Amino acid sequence: MSLDHTAEKPQDRLAAALSEDLARVDALIRERMASRHAPRIPEVTAHLIDAGGKRLRPILTLASARLCGYAGDHHIRLATTVEFIHTATLLHDDVVDDSAQRRGRPTANLLWDNTSSVLVGDYLFARSFQLMVECESLRVLDILSNAAATIAEGEVLQLTTVRNLDTTEATYEQVIRGKTAALFSAATEVGAIIAGAPEAQARALHRYGDALGMAFQIVDDFLDYGGAGDGIGKNLGDDFREGKPTLPLIRAVAAASPDERAFWERVIERRDQRPGDLEHAMTLMAQHGALESARATALEWTATARGALDALPDTALRAMLDDLAGYVTARLS
Amino acid sequence: MSLDHTAEKPQDRLAAALSEDLARVDALIRERMASRHAPRIPEVTAHLIDAGGKRLRPILTLASARLCGYAGDHHIRLATTVEFIHTATLLHDDVVDDSAQRRGRPTANLLWDNTSSVLVGDYLFARSFQLMVECESLRVLDILSNAAATIAEGEVLQLTTVRNLDTTEATYEQVIRGKTAALFSAATEVGAIIAGAPEAQARALHRYGDALGMAFQIVDDFLDYGGAGDGIGKNLGDDFREGKPTLPLIRAVAAASPDERAFWERVIERRDQRPGDLEHAMTLMAQHGALESARATALEWTATARGALDALPDTALRAMLDDLAGYVTARLS
Repeated sequence: MSLDHTAEKPQDRLAAALSEDLARVDALIRERMASRHAPRIPEVTAHLIDAGGKRLRPILTLASARLCGYAGDHHIRLATTVEFIHTATLLHDDVVDDSAQRRGRPTANLLWDNTSSVLVGDYLFARSFQLMVECESLRVLDILSNAAATIAEGEVLQLTTVRNLDTTEATYEQVIRGKTAALFSAATEVGAIIAGAPEAQARALHRYGDALGMAFQIVDDFLDYGGAGDGIGKNLGDDFREGKPTLPLIRAVAAASPDERAFWERVIERRDQRPGDLEHAMTLMAQHGALESARATALEWTATARGALDALPDTALRAMLDDLAGYVTARLS
Repeated sequence: MSLDHTAEKPQDRLAAALSEDLARVDALIRERMASRHAPRIPEVTAHLIDAGGKRLRPILTLASARLCGYAGDHHIRLATTVEFIHTATLLHDDVVDDSAQRRGRPTANLLWDNTSSVLVGDYLFARSFQLMVECESLRVLDILSNAAATIAEGEVLQLTTVRNLDTTEATYEQVIRGKTAALFSAATEVGAIIAGAPEAQARALHRYGDALGMAFQIVDDFLDYGGAGDGIGKNLGDDFREGKPTLPLIRAVAAASPDERAFWERVIERRDQRPGDLEHAMTLMAQHGALESARATALEWTATARGALDALPDTALRAMLDDLAGYVTARLS
């Protein structure tokens, strides 16, 4: 990372600016995660919710509501809602990923893990749903129900892209919108809506969240081929090994010679991978400028996110959201 | 079954009376189950939705709305909503049950099954959520979000009761309310609410659905010990083998002598089961009148369901709902 580590990260500055709201979100998370009847629920969720702790999505909702001048309480509920939806998604992803990693390996206590993940995820979805109903805004419910459908559809769509070299950029875009951008854009838009912001501001915050999420996921996918050891918890080549077509791969395949195509068919479609294959894939990506062009696409989304903020009041919070968008792609340099 | 097989079942008579509405529900199910981006979704759900085909829960919503004089369209959306929630629950149960049955056995293509079940279930939840938002009634959303939480909480609670001889009747009641009655009562109540029925009628239909669901589940649990070959697809002794405490077992354990308690601890808590154990369990249940008293409890719930209908207009539909409640416990005789 070429960033100045003496400067606080934009997300930390946002968290500091919103610290009172965030403390209320944390309290509401603990309150609503509890179950009178099933104490196992907070045991499972506490682990997840205390662990990550970045609270990026709730911060987006709180910042959007405040930026639009909101002075009520509902943004706390909505920030909690988006964190619950995010956590539920992670729990269900565990089941999906667990299954994928299990191939050919004996597993221990999978029963408990799968069962808890599915059911506690469902519980958090239901709790998030109750919280949003409490805000009594049909518009907010419409936005969040549409986001939930986009997320679920994207997850299923992703299954059909694995080991599929014919995956298009349009399909990839739908997958990552479901995986990341749909919840980001819902998080920012509901902040504006609950604040009663003008349509133009609500649309702008939706666009900001969407573009931020797209940039965020493309960067994540880029780093799978070019970002060893940046501490984000992803191992170099994970997507490659799983046969997941992401932007650098899709672009390298589009430019492939017949010999190169045969290589991609072997390693991705048939998942017949040998030592040196990941390195060779990265060489092909570099030769065809696929990594560089994926980076450029991420930067375009960042520019879209920043541009969307022009429609919002020029405040310190807006500047922090602007910095946040810049920071997402700064991980690429 | 001691029923007269020349007489149509109450549920079939309800389906006939509501056939136009039900055809619209079926069309809406097909329309909303479709996914532009992920054709795999209707493949998975078509199997489930075409299969069962009883449509009991949608029938409850349609009948309740019509009974309260509704003449609009939203009851079609709400009936589809409850069927989607039910199907999503079944899909997620598959993962849970699959895991349980897997113990010690090698499994094939579990990856595909678990993944599809979780993600397509999530997709149906999201679709049901969109459908209910389209009805633009915060009251309906409140009822359904609370039902979703009760269902999820009941599922998790059930996990903690397995192999647990200290499970109380109160806990059992919460489990089966989540498992069955919560969606039944939401299905009937939202029919009344969308029709703009008076509070007393909405409350009565909630009570009817809840009591019908409780009777339905207690009968199902009873038949696990006393209803071989009634064609409902459950094998005698399934709950026993899984160590699930249901009403007959809870009551037999409550009346157990020290020797009998030792038997229950071995077969349920330690799940050390030998040939003849199921028969011995059934003998103990009979000796302590546990099966007979579970039957009496189911009949009480049926009486509650029927009594609740007094608050509704005295029409042919009401008579069919009354017959339906009677039919649920007729499976016991």
